[in-house]
Amino acid sequence: MVLRFALIGGGEGAFIGAVHRLAAELDGAARITAGCFSSDPQRSRQAGQKLYGLPESRCYGDVSALVAGEQALPAAERVHFAIVATPNHTHFPIVRALLEGGINVVCDKPFTVTSAEARTLADLCRQRSLQLAVTYNYSGYPMVREARRLIADGALGTIRRVQCEYLQGWLSQDEERTGNKQAEWRTDPARAGSAGAFGDIGSHAEQLVRYVSGLDIEAVCADLSAFVPGRLLDDDGNVLLRLSGGARGVISASQIAVGEENALSIRVYGSKGGLIWRQEEPNTLTVRWADRPFETRRTGGPGTQAPGNRLPAGHPEGYLEAFANIYQAFTAQLRGASETDYPDAEDGLKGVQFIERVVASSQRGGIWLPLRDEPGEEQ
Amino acid sequence: MVLRFALIGGGEGAFIGAVHRLAAELDGAARITAGCFSSDPQRSRQAGQKLYGLPESRCYGDVSALVAGEQALPAAERVHFAIVATPNHTHFPIVRALLEGGINVVCDKPFTVTSAEARTLADLCRQRSLQLAVTYNYSGYPMVREARRLIADGALGTIRRVQCEYLQGWLSQDEERTGNKQAEWRTDPARAGSAGAFGDIGSHAEQLVRYVSGLDIEAVCADLSAFVPGRLLDDDGNVLLRLSGGARGVISASQIAVGEENALSIRVYGSKGGLIWRQEEPNTLTVRWADRPFETRRTGGPGTQAPGNRLPAGHPEGYLEAFANIYQAFTAQLRGASETDYPDAEDGLKGVQFIERVVASSQRGGIWLPLRDEPGEEQ
Amino acid sequence: MVLRFALIGGGEGAFIGAVHRLAAELDGAARITAGCFSSDPQRSRQAGQKLYGLPESRCYGDVSALVAGEQALPAAERVHFAIVATPNHTHFPIVRALLEGGINVVCDKPFTVTSAEARTLADLCRQRSLQLAVTYNYSGYPMVREARRLIADGALGTIRRVQCEYLQGWLSQDEERTGNKQAEWRTDPARAGSAGAFGDIGSHAEQLVRYVSGLDIEAVCADLSAFVPGRLLDDDGNVLLRLSGGARGVISASQIAVGEENALSIRVYGSKGGLIWRQEEPNTLTVRWADRPFETRRTGGPGTQAPGNRLPAGHPEGYLEAFANIYQAFTAQLRGASETDYPDAEDGLKGVQFIERVVASSQRGGIWLPLRDEPGEEQ
Amino acid sequence: MVLRFALIGGGEGAFIGAVHRLAAELDGAARITAGCFSSDPQRSRQAGQKLYGLPESRCYGDVSALVAGEQALPAAERVHFAIVATPNHTHFPIVRALLEGGINVVCDKPFTVTSAEARTLADLCRQRSLQLAVTYNYSGYPMVREARRLIADGALGTIRRVQCEYLQGWLSQDEERTGNKQAEWRTDPARAGSAGAFGDIGSHAEQLVRYVSGLDIEAVCADLSAFVPGRLLDDDGNVLLRLSGGARGVISASQIAVGEENALSIRVYGSKGGLIWRQEEPNTLTVRWADRPFETRRTGGPGTQAPGNRLPAGHPEGYLEAFANIYQAFTAQLRGASETDYPDAEDGLKGVQFIERVVASSQRGGIWLPLRDEPGEEQ
Repeated sequence: MVLRFALIGGGEGAFIGAVHRLAAELDGAARITAGCFSSDPQRSRQAGQKLYGLPESRCYGDVSALVAGEQALPAAERVHFAIVATPNHTHFPIVRALLEGGINVVCDKPFTVTSAEARTLADLCRQRSLQLAVTYNYSGYPMVREARRLIADGALGTIRRVQCEYLQGWLSQDEERTGNKQAEWRTDPARAGSAGAFGDIGSHAEQLVRYVSGLDIEAVCADLSAFVPGRLLDDDGNVLLRLSGGARGVISASQIAVGEENALSIRVYGSKGGLIWRQEEPNTLTVRWADRPFETRRTGGPGTQAPGNRLPAGHPEGYLEAFANIYQAFTAQLRGASETDYPDAEDGLKGVQFIERVVASSQRGGIWLPLRDEPGEEQ
Repeated sequence: MVLRFALIGGGEGAFIGAVHRLAAELDGAARITAGCFSSDPQRSRQAGQKLYGLPESRCYGDVSALVAGEQALPAAERVHFAIVATPNHTHFPIVRALLEGGINVVCDKPFTVTSAEARTLADLCRQRSLQLAVTYNYSGYPMVREARRLIADGALGTIRRVQCEYLQGWLSQDEERTGNKQAEWRTDPARAGSAGAFGDIGSHAEQLVRYVSGLDIEAVCADLSAFVPGRLLDDDGNVLLRLSGGARGVISASQIAVGEENALSIRVYGSKGGLIWRQEEPNTLTVRWADRPFETRRTGGPGTQAPGNRLPAGHPEGYLEAFANIYQAFTAQLRGASETDYPDAEDGLKGVQFIERVVASSQRGGIWLPLRDEPGEEQ
Repeated sequence: MVLRFALIGGGEGAFIGAVHRLAAELDGAARITAGCFSSDPQRSRQAGQKLYGLPESRCYGDVSALVAGEQALPAAERVHFAIVATPNHTHFPIVRALLEGGINVVCDKPFTVTSAEARTLADLCRQRSLQLAVTYNYSGYPMVREARRLIADGALGTIRRVQCEYLQGWLSQDEERTGNKQAEWRTDPARAGSAGAFGDIGSHAEQLVRYVSGLDIEAVCADLSAFVPGRLLDDDGNVLLRLSGGARGVISASQIAVGEENALSIRVYGSKGGLIWRQEEPNTLTVRWADRPFETRRTGGPGTQAPGNRLPAGHPEGYLEAFANIYQAFTAQLRGASETDYPDAEDGLKGVQFIERVVASSQRGGIWLPLRDEPGEEQ
Repeated sequence: MVLRFALIGGGEGAFIGAVHRLAAELDGAARITAGCFSSDPQRSRQAGQKLYGLPESRCYGDVSALVAGEQALPAAERVHFAIVATPNHTHFPIVRALLEGGINVVCDKPFTVTSAEARTLADLCRQRSLQLAVTYNYSGYPMVREARRLIADGALGTIRRVQCEYLQGWLSQDEERTGNKQAEWRTDPARAGSAGAFGDIGSHAEQLVRYVSGLDIEAVCADLSAFVPGRLLDDDGNVLLRLSGGARGVISASQIAVGEENALSIRVYGSKGGLIWRQEEPNTLTVRWADRPFETRRTGGPGTQAPGNRLPAGHPEGYLEAFANIYQAFTAQLRGASETDYPDAEDGLKGVQFIERVVASSQRGGIWLPLRDEPGEEQ
């Protein structure tokens, strides 16, 4: 059965909303059936018709209308889940409304602006037995999953060192004052929350560190900067990490690294081996050993055990397919599969906690702060 | 308007048919509406329903039925084009039937088994004013188009040397005797035609040489081998090229190059510069100059003028997106756009001529043969 | 004129002493003429004869004997400089004795064990007008110099972000208990000083950051670890950097990064461009711009202005040639050239200060410490 | 004992002569003691003194004088071998005079201008029991030797396909008319012989194919071009190969491939695996298997069995060290070692035969020619 979904966001000129829709539909497991594409009901209907071929009746002007409208439909027509692809500050009210309306959710990252909000939503999921995915899409790449598997299987021994970088250069000038919508909201504290680069891309790095290494981040020491004059949120930073089990690491994120496109990479070193994966060449995983030749594992190639490719080795699959793998797991879960693998509300919560602590550490001059709440600490 | 298409092929277990469908639909410009998925009408209907959600009435048992069925529909429901994704030897009768039925065609490569067939189809297209694309999908990569543009603009000066390779290793053992369907028909002269590796992948190389360099192949000298015992068609070969304007080159194709996945690459050297593109890292084009630092041009990156990317630089796009670019151009053509860029029947014909001459050259001990017909030569 | 030098260290089984000798002699500008290869005069003479073909009279048992012996010779036979390639803790007394004896010095890094020692030696150089080089050999690579030149010329704009890594894996197990001499002294506080990986390789990273960026390191926040059980000195660490002019950065150094060989790299991002250089492919420098295609500059290649190569582009030059470039500059200086470029005693001092502060920062839990002395701080 | 050698060639402004000297002396096993640096005795003496610090008495004006002069010396002073680093057409008379004078020889490639000359010299070596090396220096790289070893051990199975390229761009314009001495003699039939690019660099490719694959080249079909107007010798070409045991291959060589520096590479595919080595990153050998992850073997790295590195893995060694490895083997041979590995007169002869047949094949329109002499064929 093809699942039905609603898309919140993804109106004219949107970037990530369109990606969500393509990814959700790629494998034919789900199809857009409804949506809310603008806070103006008229414009929402126009976008829904023009961009997605939806009937007027399924194009809503706000989330309450969507929830009410879908609830009024027979179960056989109602959406199975909704995708939230709107600016960060709107995630919390939208997701809460959807969950309270009994609708499963796929939410873009970062999950919410505060960890208190994230905790509320995570609790709501549990209480209502609803499924929620946060689209840390990079963990959908087959070779990221191969890396996770190798480490989980103990192939690298005890993990000692983790390095994760996410470098971009597109905000090296004040793009937010040139009419670039993507830059505007990402650099605006009212819409993006307390972090800039660390909210937008640092949060991907945080999840990748946990996903691949299987370790928790226990404490951070951060040094964030805003290099572009007048910018209110960080556009660059480095964070020292202390991880569970005694491992150490560093996360670097920057949006002013001129010439870097979307340079997310992770390196993990254990007592027996090391590995490296780079998002810009996502179908290659390099694994190095102390006592035998280095290995190059490839998506779909010999020795690779991770699933997730659709084509034979050497037929490059990229960002879209990895994104679709998150949807593949999520829709499998909705259909009742067991052992599906996608980032959930708990992952979303950890991501927001990480952002909060990184910002706090930096604001306090670069001190070490634990990730877990101190006893008695207010939320 | 979303165009409607029929898919011929692409039944249960098919590889390339599914890719065609994904590629055709990726940008929302076309949608599968009918098809012929098996020569058994019953199984065709089952596959159509199960794989593509099509009504029984639009799932045909053969192409004549499809042509008749679609002609009987009102224009507003009839398909705009049909995709032919069946083994090589069936292309000719199927495409002829479609064209004679007034249906535009997208046909997989190689176009036909003989050049006489290809010429017939090319003539038919012209006579009926129908559009036909041959899916030399690798020419849909943005950086292949950037390479073509640079050369067409004269940036590399007079072209002197072209090297194109297409190396795979998946047929290094006798896969065709292990139940591998893909291997079976590709190594069977009755279904694949007179060439093995050179029909399957060498023909991509031939088109890439012409597309990127802008030159014609005038003569070939070929040395083909069948390394796997018992194999009837070539699984490896090298071909010397003489190109228009005095350029020289070499095409290598192999399916027994153990460890190579889908290693298509092209290098072109002119009097002022050289370039290289590799399919397995398709978003990078290296351009080198005699008098200034070498350049790396990237899909969507600074300085790159070629269109064709859907995502910002650094978000890897791959095989599927390139394939979809061929469909994007073809559907734009059907909608009346001018200056669209996709391989047509003439390209398909040249491809088949190339295969014929390569096979003939090799069979005659590796002699030079012109690509164009000799005067008086029978077809 | 070929300069004469003495080698201190470099006896049987030594690694870096032999490299110094090769590098010093590579361009024919200097020749070994004397040495002190063992604290046992008998063994020193044997090594000098066997390894270097030196007469007994020029093979000394200790540095005082060397100084006295050389001073007793006519100027036309006396060495012009001495190379100190002994374990860290001996640098100070040896270099002091050489300088007090009026002999110019090339000393391996780190310069000394304490910054007070380094300051004493730097003062001595100035007082005696003697030349002293510290062999931060990686700054001898042509493409490192090209990087420095581009930044000094302002091509990258204002520098904002610097990342330097030096990762090795050879100490991932307790090599120091397997009879590996190189591992033994490097992990022994009595011989290596207060730092392990950061003394041995972190100090190269520190110099490379300053050399390439042209900036000073103003403050550090360090997190060092000793992962191998029983190891007394750090074998891994990450250090946040605050640099002059407001730039930020991070230095990572590890000797437990399994599978890394000698992975020194530096990346620098300014307001107009970014660059990356990797020691393991030292003849390539990648430079990226916001508004035009990325560049690959190559040793000896088009557009590269840095000197230092001996062979045409594409003939790989490596570690030895870069090391020799330091000697080329040093011997040119001794011959009276102006504007020679090699790391001197001040660079050595800064290196030791960096190590001291990194160790102190880490020992105090990872706090920020300034590099420059606080007023009133005792030395 | 340090061996003594004479250098023929290597005067002011010479390139390869200086490389020979550095390479021969690198490991301290040999030292320049005599030479013939110009046909003008006066200039020869000046160059010998200035460039190599040689006494006048050992700087000769021609090879007869050198042979006579050295023969007149006591054995303890006489040179052990002579290095011939002069333009191609002079190799034959010089090497013959040396061998007839009882002096072992290291000769640059190509060995001679005609195969008859090469055969004469090979015979002379045997008759006089003298040693002769031809400096196919690229076979001195450790990872080339590792490749050879893997294949000789059968790790790749039966060899099927070999591809070897040697691409340069430095002759893409008429450098020979700009005063470039290196270009002048290489493009002059009177000095270079019958081949241009194929004599200069194609001969390296030929030897590398035989050395790595362990196969003989049995027949060639060549297409050579001279792209630069007015040039008399080939500057570009492609050659189809038939190898012993049924393997096929292609050699490409070009000096007009703009932007290529010194791009020598070899790829070999067998029934069980494939490998690739690239001279511009010489410390890496990629080995790929059908059934397990691809391998990266590194000079001095884990799993690599080939000897030849002087430094630990990750400390790049390059052209000079590989060149020196040929000298290391040759001087070991002179000292009586067994199983040394360097290209000898037979290799030199095969190289000249290859060049002759490639040129003949191309001149006759690109026909297949056997490498071995036909019965009754005149030499």
